[in-house]
Amino acid sequence: MHLEMVKECLEKVRQRNPLVHHITNVVVTNFTANGLLALGASPVMAYAKQEVAEMARIAGALVLNIGTLNETEVEAMLIAGRSANEQGVPVVLDPVGAGATQYRTQTARMIMEQVNISLIRGNAAEIAHVLGEKWEIKGVDAGQGDQDVSVLAQKAAKQWGTTIVITGKEDVITDGERIFRIGNGHPMLTKVTGTGCLLTSVIGSFMAVEQDALVAGAAALVCYGVAAEKAAGKAADEGPGSFQIQFLNELYKMDGADVLQMGQLNW
Amino acid sequence: MHLEMVKECLEKVRQRNPLVHHITNVVVTNFTANGLLALGASPVMAYAKQEVAEMARIAGALVLNIGTLNETEVEAMLIAGRSANEQGVPVVLDPVGAGATQYRTQTARMIMEQVNISLIRGNAAEIAHVLGEKWEIKGVDAGQGDQDVSVLAQKAAKQWGTTIVITGKEDVITDGERIFRIGNGHPMLTKVTGTGCLLTSVIGSFMAVEQDALVAGAAALVCYGVAAEKAAGKAADEGPGSFQIQFLNELYKMDGADVLQMGQLNW
Amino acid sequence: MHLEMVKECLEKVRQRNPLVHHITNVVVTNFTANGLLALGASPVMAYAKQEVAEMARIAGALVLNIGTLNETEVEAMLIAGRSANEQGVPVVLDPVGAGATQYRTQTARMIMEQVNISLIRGNAAEIAHVLGEKWEIKGVDAGQGDQDVSVLAQKAAKQWGTTIVITGKEDVITDGERIFRIGNGHPMLTKVTGTGCLLTSVIGSFMAVEQDALVAGAAALVCYGVAAEKAAGKAADEGPGSFQIQFLNELYKMDGADVLQMGQLNW
Repeated sequence: MHLEMVKECLEKVRQRNPLVHHITNVVVTNFTANGLLALGASPVMAYAKQEVAEMARIAGALVLNIGTLNETEVEAMLIAGRSANEQGVPVVLDPVGAGATQYRTQTARMIMEQVNISLIRGNAAEIAHVLGEKWEIKGVDAGQGDQDVSVLAQKAAKQWGTTIVITGKEDVITDGERIFRIGNGHPMLTKVTGTGCLLTSVIGSFMAVEQDALVAGAAALVCYGVAAEKAAGKAADEGPGSFQIQFLNELYKMDGADVLQMGQLNW
Repeated sequence: MHLEMVKECLEKVRQRNPLVHHITNVVVTNFTANGLLALGASPVMAYAKQEVAEMARIAGALVLNIGTLNETEVEAMLIAGRSANEQGVPVVLDPVGAGATQYRTQTARMIMEQVNISLIRGNAAEIAHVLGEKWEIKGVDAGQGDQDVSVLAQKAAKQWGTTIVITGKEDVITDGERIFRIGNGHPMLTKVTGTGCLLTSVIGSFMAVEQDALVAGAAALVCYGVAAEKAAGKAADEGPGSFQIQFLNELYKMDGADVLQMGQLNW
Repeated sequence: MHLEMVKECLEKVRQRNPLVHHITNVVVTNFTANGLLALGASPVMAYAKQEVAEMARIAGALVLNIGTLNETEVEAMLIAGRSANEQGVPVVLDPVGAGATQYRTQTARMIMEQVNISLIRGNAAEIAHVLGEKWEIKGVDAGQGDQDVSVLAQKAAKQWGTTIVITGKEDVITDGERIFRIGNGHPMLTKVTGTGCLLTSVIGSFMAVEQDALVAGAAALVCYGVAAEKAAGKAADEGPGSFQIQFLNELYKMDGADVLQMGQLNW
């Protein structure tokens, strides 16, 4: 895989405007919808058990995010997930806060047992907790920590037979065999709520136009990080309010030339 | 009707700060509330069946929006709607996504059967699906398409005995007899989530101060479109993030002089 | 208490990044989370009865906000509140809209009966309605009105044995004995939705690092008002969209030197 493929994926998203069905948390719905519209995808949020099967069926991808889960929503996630599976629509899971409470950890596992998930994105702690691994947050120290993340990602990918994205100082994506590291991004992303959730939805948008989840995910990570770097160049000094706005602008404006010039895709 | 009447409606909204009760979707609550505050209205969101009758009764208008509907919320919409009807408070319906799933189409129809709706706003596909008409999205091609929209709007208005707003490249409003076309607006509105929903709420705000739904709706459409054009003049080149912020600024700053100078109200 | 103590509180929030658990309304979740991230705290929203006890237990403070309450959410608030009480985690209540409907007034009272609340923040009408006092909104006229607010705040604080914040043209905080008046703030705050709710959450963040609720609350009020004034200096002329963004920027950038230079803490 190389940056030309990232560029192609981005252009396919903008040409096809894929419909991405979300069952996601109440904190990030507006930002997620605006981020996907800016990028060129077509977001829809639908939660009622009476309609999620129908909506998931016509979508290009389904994004499940447990950030503010409850019983009713989890039931809808399972219905939507099974419908997507029947129709061959890829399903992406964001296990927000897994490990913070047992309910989140167990719900993430239950969804994974009952729905065929094509890709899971989380930070290292979330992935480790769902996997049942002990994971101590080691702070910002790199080296050993980074290597651990790759090992963790590959173990999760093999055990679950899915593609895993672990985001952090460096982002890692693997299907258990192939592995990529994406060096793009910016620390200001951590000062805006829902940037992890929006990334998961951007990955979903790319998976709607590219069948290989590893390629789609890596392409999304590069584009997302490049947009963040461009936004930070304009607004990091002003603060997180301005950064958030510039980030939406850059999701809209960034293009293939930016990808080729700024993309950092390593393996 | 002429632009002086639009100017008067806008000024009445700002003088009276009407309370507008919303039962709306989770994607747009924040943007809707900020848009109405910027304009000069007073938004309130209340959803519990224990309180919606009381809240609707003291409001100047009630806005029902099915964008992320569920059983509990629909029950609350019916209670609030009946309470508004008893008190003579105008009720506006936004049938978001009607046609996308059967549940949405049927719920929109059920609300219209049980609540006296003063105005419905949707895009052509939503209105057509609720009406039970076949409607093929014909792309951006104009001419014949635009004429169809007027026919559709008038058919819906007559069948339902209500005022209909269909938004698109050009906006149409009709009570089945009179019809206006509003030429204001900007394509950047389609890059920000909830701009259709906010428009419905702005129409509600105008209906709280002007009894003739056709006049109130046409005035709201002109003001909304003028604000969008002013915002685009400042921020369209930067992207949808900046546009969204400038749009809120312009809802706050636009005034009667802008209406008289920029308004495009045709019949 | 003096401004040096405000400065120390602010610095402690930024050093410790306290986790603040919210059960709050759907209108303000995104803005609240972004405001706390900008300030330096760590917001989490969790609502399911299966997890709120666990989440509240590990938080530095718990914020309960009834802005879009429903039965399920109120049940979760009680579970979370009792868990916080058992663990000594301070609980803050924002009785949004108390007085507007009986359900809100009664729910606020019920929460106060069943949970030990450390601080309540509202406007004068909300506090008066929960207290069962008659309160006529007297418009913007000061003098007598301001004095009434102090009397009301002290009466509420003594009756409930808690710290009370009443916000308005001038902000008052009292534990029934000591009382402070904070002169910082800006009218543009009233043009952005959720600025009262975010303030309550900022107070919660300060209470997570300072045990004396009166000191924490007063410090939060000063910092919040200073950030608003700095933001207004940059963006008030542009409108509420730009103000909101600059306000997030200033919550991030304001520091101890701004507090010492601009803070207005009176008693």
